[in-house]
Amino acid sequence: MVADAVVAALVSALPEGVVVTAAESMEKYRHDWAHDGTAGMPLAVVRADDAAHVQAAVRWAAEHGIPIVPRGAGSGLSGGANAVDGGIVVTTERMRAIEIDTASRVAVVEPGALNIEVKHAAAEHGLWYPPDPSSYEICSIGGNVATNAGGLCCVKYGVTTDYVLGLDVVLADGTLITLGGKRVKDVAGLSLLKLFVGSEGTLGIVTRAILRLVPAQEARSTLVATFPSVESAAAAVVEMGRRLRPSMLELMDQESINAVEDYQPMQLDRDAGALLVAQSDLPAVARPTEMAAIEDACRAAGAKELFVTDDPEEGEQFVQARRLAFPAIEATGSLLLEDVGVPVPLLPVLLAEIATIAGRHRTRIPTVAHAGDGNTHPIIVFDPTDADAAARARLAFDDIMAAAIALGGTITGEHGVGRAKKGALPDQLGPEVMALTRRVKDALDPLGILNPGAIL
Amino acid sequence: MVADAVVAALVSALPEGVVVTAAESMEKYRHDWAHDGTAGMPLAVVRADDAAHVQAAVRWAAEHGIPIVPRGAGSGLSGGANAVDGGIVVTTERMRAIEIDTASRVAVVEPGALNIEVKHAAAEHGLWYPPDPSSYEICSIGGNVATNAGGLCCVKYGVTTDYVLGLDVVLADGTLITLGGKRVKDVAGLSLLKLFVGSEGTLGIVTRAILRLVPAQEARSTLVATFPSVESAAAAVVEMGRRLRPSMLELMDQESINAVEDYQPMQLDRDAGALLVAQSDLPAVARPTEMAAIEDACRAAGAKELFVTDDPEEGEQFVQARRLAFPAIEATGSLLLEDVGVPVPLLPVLLAEIATIAGRHRTRIPTVAHAGDGNTHPIIVFDPTDADAAARARLAFDDIMAAAIALGGTITGEHGVGRAKKGALPDQLGPEVMALTRRVKDALDPLGILNPGAIL
Repeated sequence: MVADAVVAALVSALPEGVVVTAAESMEKYRHDWAHDGTAGMPLAVVRADDAAHVQAAVRWAAEHGIPIVPRGAGSGLSGGANAVDGGIVVTTERMRAIEIDTASRVAVVEPGALNIEVKHAAAEHGLWYPPDPSSYEICSIGGNVATNAGGLCCVKYGVTTDYVLGLDVVLADGTLITLGGKRVKDVAGLSLLKLFVGSEGTLGIVTRAILRLVPAQEARSTLVATFPSVESAAAAVVEMGRRLRPSMLELMDQESINAVEDYQPMQLDRDAGALLVAQSDLPAVARPTEMAAIEDACRAAGAKELFVTDDPEEGEQFVQARRLAFPAIEATGSLLLEDVGVPVPLLPVLLAEIATIAGRHRTRIPTVAHAGDGNTHPIIVFDPTDADAAARARLAFDDIMAAAIALGGTITGEHGVGRAKKGALPDQLGPEVMALTRRVKDALDPLGILNPGAIL
Repeated sequence: MVADAVVAALVSALPEGVVVTAAESMEKYRHDWAHDGTAGMPLAVVRADDAAHVQAAVRWAAEHGIPIVPRGAGSGLSGGANAVDGGIVVTTERMRAIEIDTASRVAVVEPGALNIEVKHAAAEHGLWYPPDPSSYEICSIGGNVATNAGGLCCVKYGVTTDYVLGLDVVLADGTLITLGGKRVKDVAGLSLLKLFVGSEGTLGIVTRAILRLVPAQEARSTLVATFPSVESAAAAVVEMGRRLRPSMLELMDQESINAVEDYQPMQLDRDAGALLVAQSDLPAVARPTEMAAIEDACRAAGAKELFVTDDPEEGEQFVQARRLAFPAIEATGSLLLEDVGVPVPLLPVLLAEIATIAGRHRTRIPTVAHAGDGNTHPIIVFDPTDADAAARARLAFDDIMAAAIALGGTITGEHGVGRAKKGALPDQLGPEVMALTRRVKDALDPLGILNPGAIL
């Protein structure tokens, strides 16, 4: 039991309004989107305005051995930002400054800035920040860095780590360090910068990021193709992967198509076994050739119907259909959202395995995928009032991770391990890599106060 | 003094011919291209055929507390592969297998394979491995991974770490671990994979790499432009950086132009203050627009003469002129090769600083640059028989690093810290980041046997 005087010391160490301790005010900081019922009740929530506030909170926590859960926008899907009983939450939601340096072609960003805000700020200067998680309208850069977030365009443009040139990080003892900077290339010393990206708040708390920008994306052409089966759609993806670089290559299976049609009718073909949405963003004069090659790959794999548009808004509607899959399916029950990935050629095998697992556990598992990356989101749907269904959903969740590992894949392609998947991590990494992970964690956070229970 | 019996134990632990102990046979394994006179004499050189040989050597070294210098092709420029007295060298030069998986679009490569060999193997399948250090014909993938090597095309295509999907690594206790794999996206656990890239053999020895490939590059158009000064050429680079993505953007100053003309006449303009070589690799129909924009930027910055060619071989001659700068200048004296980088808009300032430093120390410093990345190679030339000139060269070397740091830059953009630059590393990173580096190093190599004296 932490004494009231200890909490009072935290409150008085920071300006009025920064530290929240009323239970009702803290409620919204207890969970991320994984909605894990085991989330704890924090002692306090620190709503930092700057790095100095984060440092003060971490120093206090280090002094008293109190756990810290760092939090961005709370849109994480693996429970990585779930509060811990007897700990504190440090949220960076108030730290939202964005500065665009057009000559260096970078954005200097505080961690609470939303992904969409960075995109908008860059766009004002004809520049583009590519990483685009489906949640880009509500997720923060801090969370994106913490999970090394992916998205739809990363099939061509890579993931968050590819765009991080610099980070300010508060370490477990409260020291503020700066790694990297506005320089594009830098190999001086160990790649500590890259180590913090994807560390899910277990090694330090990011208080500033320098993000590489690229020139604004060209207008895109969009192809939508329906297939008799997920296997045939996946075969088209594998074939494209051999020789093309679409700027987006997304898959929806029959159940997710129908869920979206139920939720918001868009005249998608309910009978299709699967649907692919592919885009090309080459300069306009070169785009028809790439689109034709994408079309050929779809036809060769047995596409039923093909639709191509050069109209960006029309194309965006199909991308929107893909993005709607998650809320559409959520409207039909409780969800366990998976994020497994495999080498691209094994995508058809993984999708077949998921169907088998759905049958075995009598559970609906509609699936969407960043198909071009081999990264799938099987969405396990269950009736939360039915304990047996919930238990079966849980079994399916574990079986899908096991299937991905058996195929040389990963339990998480972009959401992170958080608390929801840490049980399966040793199965993927093995004892030696887990031991190495522990050594790095202990070296950087010897007291174990940074996001304990996440990853490890 | 290590007993003969200890070395004999190493020899007998490995098949005949793997361990070399004759001084004359070890001579060529003592230095890398930094030609540092302080390189030591090893006890033995282990020419590993596979990971098991590396493991056996590391276990032996760990047991006896003996330093290990890992070595690839020995083409490093920072002394990172220089032998240590009383230690062993473990060379991976014999481990050269390359396997291309076209469906996964990856190369599975042993560390001794040369960069050019990977490029050729990929090209046979219509694929491309982009990273292209100037030494690509003689440098190995193991060394590329150890230094996170860059090159000419990384202005558009990124550096080695952007292409590493998986690594097998022998740790300091001889444990062999596998990180990553053929999957494109994977955020399960800490980014240990990225930590090993660029670690210069101080954290482990890479025995296999899985490298991401992309579809073969399109034919390129090339622009060569001469400028009245390096400042005006650098201004063109900064302007291009705001809105274009050339696939190559290289700079040569007047002295390096003349050195190349002296070495191999190519009808370069000896009076030009600087020369830029830029390329576009967009699809043929889209290329003229990008080339015109590159041309406009050059004209606006005051280019004197412009030459554009769509002929790949003609274009390659100009790239070759740029690549020749290093041997051409080496033919005129001893060299200290710099590798400093700054944010792109500060490139003109850095180049002016270098000229000032050359004057201050009465030393020739011809400079070439991966200008689009802000990464420069000032080449300090001196007469090795003149002790005072050598001392002044050394001062210039240190002053250039200090100038880069003062501009928010780096002491090394792509060559690595090795032994040549470790004295300046704390000036760039500061005491906190150095302490963090030390903690990570100690966690992974508690005995300090992996490449001691490199980086730290």
